[in-house]
Amino acid sequence: MRGYGLNRVRVGSLSSKGNDPISPEPGGGAGDWRNMSSPVAFLFDLDGTLVDSVYNHVRAWHVALREQGLELSVWRIHRKIGMSGGLFTAQLQRELRRSIDEDGLKRLRDRHADLFRELSKDVPPLPGAVDLLKELTKQGLPWAIATSGRMRTAEMNLKSLEVDPQKATVITRDMVRYAKPDPDLFVEAAKQLGTATQGSYVIGDSIWDMYAAKRCGALGIGFLSGGYGKDELERAGAMRVFDDPADMLVHLDELAPRTRE
Amino acid sequence: MRGYGLNRVRVGSLSSKGNDPISPEPGGGAGDWRNMSSPVAFLFDLDGTLVDSVYNHVRAWHVALREQGLELSVWRIHRKIGMSGGLFTAQLQRELRRSIDEDGLKRLRDRHADLFRELSKDVPPLPGAVDLLKELTKQGLPWAIATSGRMRTAEMNLKSLEVDPQKATVITRDMVRYAKPDPDLFVEAAKQLGTATQGSYVIGDSIWDMYAAKRCGALGIGFLSGGYGKDELERAGAMRVFDDPADMLVHLDELAPRTRE
Repeated sequence: MRGYGLNRVRVGSLSSKGNDPISPEPGGGAGDWRNMSSPVAFLFDLDGTLVDSVYNHVRAWHVALREQGLELSVWRIHRKIGMSGGLFTAQLQRELRRSIDEDGLKRLRDRHADLFRELSKDVPPLPGAVDLLKELTKQGLPWAIATSGRMRTAEMNLKSLEVDPQKATVITRDMVRYAKPDPDLFVEAAKQLGTATQGSYVIGDSIWDMYAAKRCGALGIGFLSGGYGKDELERAGAMRVFDDPADMLVHLDELAPRTRE
Repeated sequence: MRGYGLNRVRVGSLSSKGNDPISPEPGGGAGDWRNMSSPVAFLFDLDGTLVDSVYNHVRAWHVALREQGLELSVWRIHRKIGMSGGLFTAQLQRELRRSIDEDGLKRLRDRHADLFRELSKDVPPLPGAVDLLKELTKQGLPWAIATSGRMRTAEMNLKSLEVDPQKATVITRDMVRYAKPDPDLFVEAAKQLGTATQGSYVIGDSIWDMYAAKRCGALGIGFLSGGYGKDELERAGAMRVFDDPADMLVHLDELAPRTRE
């Protein structure tokens, strides 16, 4: 029997043969590699991971907040990008020590979405993003995109990535109950790919991706391309940290990306 | 004789009495605390340290570069803010693997300055910045601002900080030969305050401030308010890392801010 390496999926090993298929739900058999026999998936965050849009989100939130008289330092907004919108606004109110009613929150969210779309007319993919997805497809490796954003804000980014949400697996905020750092987006993505999060890779630029990875037994891979520091991502659980998709593509073989038959 | 604490200035100690005054140049007596008898100064960076302007600089550079067909991921621009403009453009050309002629560089710099001024019409001070400078003044502690930017881009930020460059000590790129990570800006600031960088504090949000601090024997204090991670600043030499000026103000006494008579 081979050792317990990066790629923790074992196909047809003695002990797993004939066992029930693994549940894709978080917590299902975490840590027991003998029970894992589903293919390893590559589950990507979108903003700051595949497209260079984090700083546009930061600016859109900052302008939307200031328009409503809400002053929050820009770096504090930056560090919240990628978390669930509900948690974002809850933490916002806690930090500003004032409450915002449901109408105010809706205005904020709508204004952010409008400003973001305005800023993102020609947001480029991050270096290597298109090539990385193509390489995974070419190798027959399952991949999906799972974003805390709604389809309304995600669709322009998907277009710049040359990803058709009708053909690829794309999970948005609209499709699950809870967004990051809850793992639902990644769990749903794995489910649609016919595999499990357990032992799969979650690739993202923010600590919210890394926390969500931990919660569903996935292995976190961090990218610096969203503007976090390496150490922030590692402390949040990233097993590896790369600059961006181009850097991950160079190191892809180190992730043991083997297809399962 | 007292121990060798955070505040390394000793006034009237036996060994320094009667000695020649300390040279404010870097390397002058570094490490020999018995030779230090000049007041400890608080030498502040401006953008991202006292005013919330780093992300505006990031955006202004990003737009200026794209307009000239130069694509660089936004996080890579972010991590260069605060370094000398000359080094910034040199590194830019290295990363893009193409050279830009002197005219092109001038157009870039001018366009960045215009866009930055446009974005920064109402850039706010960071929380606690105005209070921190007032408290230092009240306690009779020498402080100055030293920025890699030119007066043209700095003046709006100084205004929002309620700092009059005719009255306070403000050193800009125009006044020294080399900007950060060279220490000249901080050395000149200390000189104008009639003190030395050796044993003084350099307070900034970027690793360029921390490197410059090291080079002139100052103690680096990092702020997270420019968007760097804590670990990035510590690895670059920061002795302490605070969130922002408000956080430093709460902890001011830990820095032994004693006046010298």
